[in-house]
Amino acid sequence: MLLLPGMKAKQLQQYSHLYKSNLLNDVIPFWLNNSLDKEYGGYFTCLDKTGNVFDTDKFMWLQGRQLWMFSMLYTNVEQKQEWLDAALHGADFLIKHGRDAEGNWYFSLNREGQPLVQPYNIFSDCFAALGFSALYKAKPEQLYADIAAATFNKILRRRDNPKGIYNKAFPGTRPLKNFSLPMILCNLSLEMEHLLGKETVDALTREIIHEVMEVFYHPESGLILENVYQNGSFCDSFEGRLVNPGHVLEAMWFIADQAVRLNDQPLIHQTKEIALRVLEYGWDKEHGGILYFKDIKGHPTQQLEWDQKLWWVHAEALVCLLKAYLHTGDERCWEWFEKLHEYTWKHFPDPENGEWYGYLNREGKPLLTLKGGKWKGCFHVPRALYQCWMTLDAILEKETNLTLQEK
Amino acid sequence: MLLLPGMKAKQLQQYSHLYKSNLLNDVIPFWLNNSLDKEYGGYFTCLDKTGNVFDTDKFMWLQGRQLWMFSMLYTNVEQKQEWLDAALHGADFLIKHGRDAEGNWYFSLNREGQPLVQPYNIFSDCFAALGFSALYKAKPEQLYADIAAATFNKILRRRDNPKGIYNKAFPGTRPLKNFSLPMILCNLSLEMEHLLGKETVDALTREIIHEVMEVFYHPESGLILENVYQNGSFCDSFEGRLVNPGHVLEAMWFIADQAVRLNDQPLIHQTKEIALRVLEYGWDKEHGGILYFKDIKGHPTQQLEWDQKLWWVHAEALVCLLKAYLHTGDERCWEWFEKLHEYTWKHFPDPENGEWYGYLNREGKPLLTLKGGKWKGCFHVPRALYQCWMTLDAILEKETNLTLQEK
Repeated sequence: MLLLPGMKAKQLQQYSHLYKSNLLNDVIPFWLNNSLDKEYGGYFTCLDKTGNVFDTDKFMWLQGRQLWMFSMLYTNVEQKQEWLDAALHGADFLIKHGRDAEGNWYFSLNREGQPLVQPYNIFSDCFAALGFSALYKAKPEQLYADIAAATFNKILRRRDNPKGIYNKAFPGTRPLKNFSLPMILCNLSLEMEHLLGKETVDALTREIIHEVMEVFYHPESGLILENVYQNGSFCDSFEGRLVNPGHVLEAMWFIADQAVRLNDQPLIHQTKEIALRVLEYGWDKEHGGILYFKDIKGHPTQQLEWDQKLWWVHAEALVCLLKAYLHTGDERCWEWFEKLHEYTWKHFPDPENGEWYGYLNREGKPLLTLKGGKWKGCFHVPRALYQCWMTLDAILEKETNLTLQEK
Repeated sequence: MLLLPGMKAKQLQQYSHLYKSNLLNDVIPFWLNNSLDKEYGGYFTCLDKTGNVFDTDKFMWLQGRQLWMFSMLYTNVEQKQEWLDAALHGADFLIKHGRDAEGNWYFSLNREGQPLVQPYNIFSDCFAALGFSALYKAKPEQLYADIAAATFNKILRRRDNPKGIYNKAFPGTRPLKNFSLPMILCNLSLEMEHLLGKETVDALTREIIHEVMEVFYHPESGLILENVYQNGSFCDSFEGRLVNPGHVLEAMWFIADQAVRLNDQPLIHQTKEIALRVLEYGWDKEHGGILYFKDIKGHPTQQLEWDQKLWWVHAEALVCLLKAYLHTGDERCWEWFEKLHEYTWKHFPDPENGEWYGYLNREGKPLLTLKGGKWKGCFHVPRALYQCWMTLDAILEKETNLTLQEK
């Protein structure tokens, strides 16, 4: 990738335009037009290929995430009333129906808001906290801050046994811990710094970075594992052998954001090296794209979907590579970005009907034609489009400054 | 399918030989050679392509099922000492480690027998009861009968809330019931008649047949649903829209066995019609084979593995078609059997290394190369081979008698 500065600048502008335009002219209108339940409140997320609602259940991960998305756009992109209204539309429903008497967030509700699945899943709470803390930035009403802070405190208290009474593991035989929670807390603590304060975030950050970059890091492979023993050692079991490349790539940009906050250059380089390593490892040499799951010893995985290509994996990988390139200038990041960009834009977006397909088979053809479902909502695609747009502009600014300095 | 009697007889003999020989010379030796844990007892089930153990956890579904398999072979095929020894090898381990203090069967143990996953899954109990009741036929020690009977009683008591404290559904909002338990009880009650007695089985049978053939039956489609409201009505949700063609086909031969016991010809015809309907519905017109899951309204399923081809689905469908043909003589059953036989034998068995692949992608290529895992053990393949062998011989006998009567 040795381009003349002028050509590189033009190319960066083109990429930036593509990500921005897909976000603002395609993906966000798709959700605004199709996902608001005007009758009962909250968001529909089960949207078929053309945006029609095919199921009306309301999954709390996706309710909280969509609230975050519209609040964030309002705060960071433009103070559009319809974006704030869309955020408030979700917030009102969540306030009314989202929690049990102890303040824990249900996993799902029916259309009317009655609870369907108990609050067994701590990530429902994580994304509710994420959503309300962003809404508080968009519209600083104390209630929103209170909900976010109270939820965050409950998450910290539940941390050591997140599933609580629904935990099916027999105590003591194989005490494992999972990568997802420290990874999400890494992003969540940064998103909530305006509510938590610098000191709390500092303390939490140091602990989380240690967990992600040392405890779950597997030095022999240079990868990060999904589950390790409580003491950090490798567990030779289905859970212990599992690698989720998309998770690692998403975590690496969360950690890179923390590293920027801490101005920790060695940490930034470490995230970049792990990202490049996991891409090499997770890339499907036969059909392209990033595999969903692998077993670190090469054994069959439990997950029957291991060879599928998922939207969020590719979206988060694009963000990760651009951030790594911005912060380190390592040309391998740019080369990987271009390779991944080409695969992603060839297979995931649906220019005819809008938004992106979520689930492709190994060959890259849509396995499910939905645009939203139980797990895919208004989150990874638009967040990644926004992050890529911003990061491409930052790269452009940095490279322009460098060129000017050289002259 | 209009063959001369002589040709048909030869063809039936060839099929019978194939199923018998694959059972006795390939599949059973594969498990005998690779799955017995000589050090800690019980069975390894995670076996790779060539039979090497790649994981040592012990999953109770598969422990109970393998115990059943070897006990059944000893009782029904030949009193081989090594088969009885293999059964006792599993039984000893299960007696020592399988249950909690209340007599509920854990979901899984580690290699040494320490509990890993709590007894949240009632099917662990079902397959333990199945195994010990068959062992009691092979070796009538009272302990085995007691374990089977006590387990069966506990299953009946847990029936209305099988997941107990691990149930994550919020009470009352959407009270669903699931097809799996009545379906398994249909088979289990018949398998345990020597312990339960005729009257108990009669009462249970009538109730189960009603559940399967009327409550879960969906008249508009002629199919059977995986989940319905407690009152039997259709629930328009991911769970309520789910059809699992393999489940239906397996259930139809369980019900056909019950119908034979009751000498209920209309019921036999009903199972045959549903089986033919579900095959038509579940058959992949593009690539052949039976799809794993479908949504009855044609919406995307929750299950990412919906388009895969699973060993047990095809094995159970073969049994179902042969029994339907034996009992009704409907030539459509024989035509479907031949079509399915061809697909199955082309894609699943691995003559080079033994046993069958379990998980194929939509195109029919192995998606996982394992021969055994967390869910695939020494059960569906050998049971189906045995059932097909026996049923083919019965068809041969019946058709020979008919031909003799005609002369």
